[in-house]
Amino acid sequence: MAGRNIDYSTLFNKDLSSPSGKWQGHPKYNFIGGHSDPDLVPMDSFIESATNVFKGDARNIAMYNFDGGPQGVLSLRSFLVEKLATERGIHVTTEEILITSGSGQGIELINEILLDEGDTVIVESFTFAGALSNLRRRRVNFVGVDIDESGIRMDRLKDILENLKTNGIRPKYIYTIPTLQNPTGTVMTMERRYQLIKLSEEYEVPIFEDECYADLIFEGECEKAIRSLDDSNRVLHIGSFSKSLGPGLRLGYVVASWDVMSRLISKKSDAGTGVMDQMIVGDYFSNHYDEHILDMRSALKRKCDVLSAALREHFGPLVDFQEPRGGMYLWVKLPSGIDSRDMVQTALEEGVAYNPGPDWSADPDAAANYIRLCFALPSENEIREGIEKLAKVFHL
Amino acid sequence: MAGRNIDYSTLFNKDLSSPSGKWQGHPKYNFIGGHSDPDLVPMDSFIESATNVFKGDARNIAMYNFDGGPQGVLSLRSFLVEKLATERGIHVTTEEILITSGSGQGIELINEILLDEGDTVIVESFTFAGALSNLRRRRVNFVGVDIDESGIRMDRLKDILENLKTNGIRPKYIYTIPTLQNPTGTVMTMERRYQLIKLSEEYEVPIFEDECYADLIFEGECEKAIRSLDDSNRVLHIGSFSKSLGPGLRLGYVVASWDVMSRLISKKSDAGTGVMDQMIVGDYFSNHYDEHILDMRSALKRKCDVLSAALREHFGPLVDFQEPRGGMYLWVKLPSGIDSRDMVQTALEEGVAYNPGPDWSADPDAAANYIRLCFALPSENEIREGIEKLAKVFHL
Repeated sequence: MAGRNIDYSTLFNKDLSSPSGKWQGHPKYNFIGGHSDPDLVPMDSFIESATNVFKGDARNIAMYNFDGGPQGVLSLRSFLVEKLATERGIHVTTEEILITSGSGQGIELINEILLDEGDTVIVESFTFAGALSNLRRRRVNFVGVDIDESGIRMDRLKDILENLKTNGIRPKYIYTIPTLQNPTGTVMTMERRYQLIKLSEEYEVPIFEDECYADLIFEGECEKAIRSLDDSNRVLHIGSFSKSLGPGLRLGYVVASWDVMSRLISKKSDAGTGVMDQMIVGDYFSNHYDEHILDMRSALKRKCDVLSAALREHFGPLVDFQEPRGGMYLWVKLPSGIDSRDMVQTALEEGVAYNPGPDWSADPDAAANYIRLCFALPSENEIREGIEKLAKVFHL
Repeated sequence: MAGRNIDYSTLFNKDLSSPSGKWQGHPKYNFIGGHSDPDLVPMDSFIESATNVFKGDARNIAMYNFDGGPQGVLSLRSFLVEKLATERGIHVTTEEILITSGSGQGIELINEILLDEGDTVIVESFTFAGALSNLRRRRVNFVGVDIDESGIRMDRLKDILENLKTNGIRPKYIYTIPTLQNPTGTVMTMERRYQLIKLSEEYEVPIFEDECYADLIFEGECEKAIRSLDDSNRVLHIGSFSKSLGPGLRLGYVVASWDVMSRLISKKSDAGTGVMDQMIVGDYFSNHYDEHILDMRSALKRKCDVLSAALREHFGPLVDFQEPRGGMYLWVKLPSGIDSRDMVQTALEEGVAYNPGPDWSADPDAAANYIRLCFALPSENEIREGIEKLAKVFHL
């Protein structure tokens, strides 16, 4: 039947964001997002792990939440219990772990149970774009606290907390990415981690610790998680498998005590996270975590060095950046006066994609002359060529 | 550090639902939810498909949305283009298909773009519990329209639409599960499908067609989808892979024209649905859909017969139900005066789990003496034993 078309613009809700454009494919020199290195995806081992898990109990597929209930596949949570203890100093049981569809769902669920419109939270002045956009969508106020190469400036944090208290405001949490911060790549010192817990106690404000990148320290040991330094329940902790294996996998986790966990579970209304991803990753990491992570770290270190060298060669002293101790990003400061948002389209026309700094900043204009570059996906040659092209785009 | 514990009850948002209890494992005689038959999960073929896809391009894992953009893995959408044309009479391109993390996410996204608090929608009087709970959470009004063995009563629907119009209310959509309805198992006749489109035109109200169960017709051909009978863009169509393969897979889809699709994509903020599930199912169904579905249909028919016989044996003439043409549920009417909610706990203590009717009813009390039984998961013996126990619980 061919009737009059329905005009959905008369039906959409009041609050709609702008429509998506049609997908244009991927840029050639791709420095955006948190893509991973295809050469490091263990495809052969995934065949082995898939064979293992599909020889197992078919009820894993035939049922909702077969072996682990709504908190996720038990083998994956058991792996995390081990890994969190060994790598991050966090000692919990499988009951304190919730598998999520990407760590973004962890942020969504924590916000869902804690935040009302008009609430206030504290974030690092430069921080994860997805966390900021989630807060904006909820009309939650956020206050950015300055960070330096040692993490959050605790003097500034105390001022903010005191000032808010004077105004009768108790922030709902302090959101921090202490270990290989996104976007700056810094690691909060142990001293500041303890100071942060003390301030959290003094002002009765929980800490929301996002450790998506903590696996990716290039060399040596990493500072232990803030969650591991506290046993008074004040740290909500999230992490991810997308950064250590690849973001095509939508797998993350939340670590929380039962009073919070029981609320998170009742808000997780997706009938579970896909089990094939969970089972295959659970099997693979239970057998190969150590070797995989070592490969990953050295490959990322190499690419980070190539990117640093290319920036020095093509941008020279006009750019400023810290070489990070790990992760997959460089946070690059361009001369002041430049607005990196203005050049996104021009760069794309040259095949180069980067993230403009303002998206990763509590105060967007304060990061106008910053860009974030992810070095995990492009090959070493693509990094060199891409940065050469980018320098031309910026006329530097 | 051992400080004072944080009391999260002073921090939770105002609108919180009750906490989840700890997971108690699965009941022995499990007639709840939409679990599937473990014997029908093609575990060996999944090994084959996993091997195929993990021999492919590692960028599928290493990148967000590698081969298909944010709408989902291309091989799975290409399979759907074929299947929707052959099985449901729906002719679309991959650009009109969005892969979702379960069909529940399809409902969530469609509601997200169309519904404001206080809006009105029309639903079938008995309908999917998850759709109702989503509407309640959004504080959207829903009006239940009577259904019979031929689907929605169009005379009643016209009255409702006319009445709302008189009161200045344009409903945002008419939600229907026309093909193997959940919970009643009925199939809307072709005549009524055309009438529904005419009413949709007359009152300018879109149709939201949920076809999660349409694959599962026991015998013969199924009535074509409402979406296939209209080319004026008034039908939003969703479907699922969870019912034909198993709900551990969280895979569904939305079919919509670009004006709606572009809005759905911009609201799908999960950074994509997990790719392993998508790729493995895409490979498996591209090669084995027909044989798998035939197996599934005959096995479900057999279990449906066993459940019907067990109900007749143990409940006798005190229960009333229609044998459905497909699907995985029986919608069973008990003598009036019984409230099925009262017996849930007693039945569970006997190891028997069923869904009380009120959860699947726009007017909960109107379905107090109904229960929904899913026959896909339990073995034939478990069905017989479970129903014998259930009859004792109800003292029938």
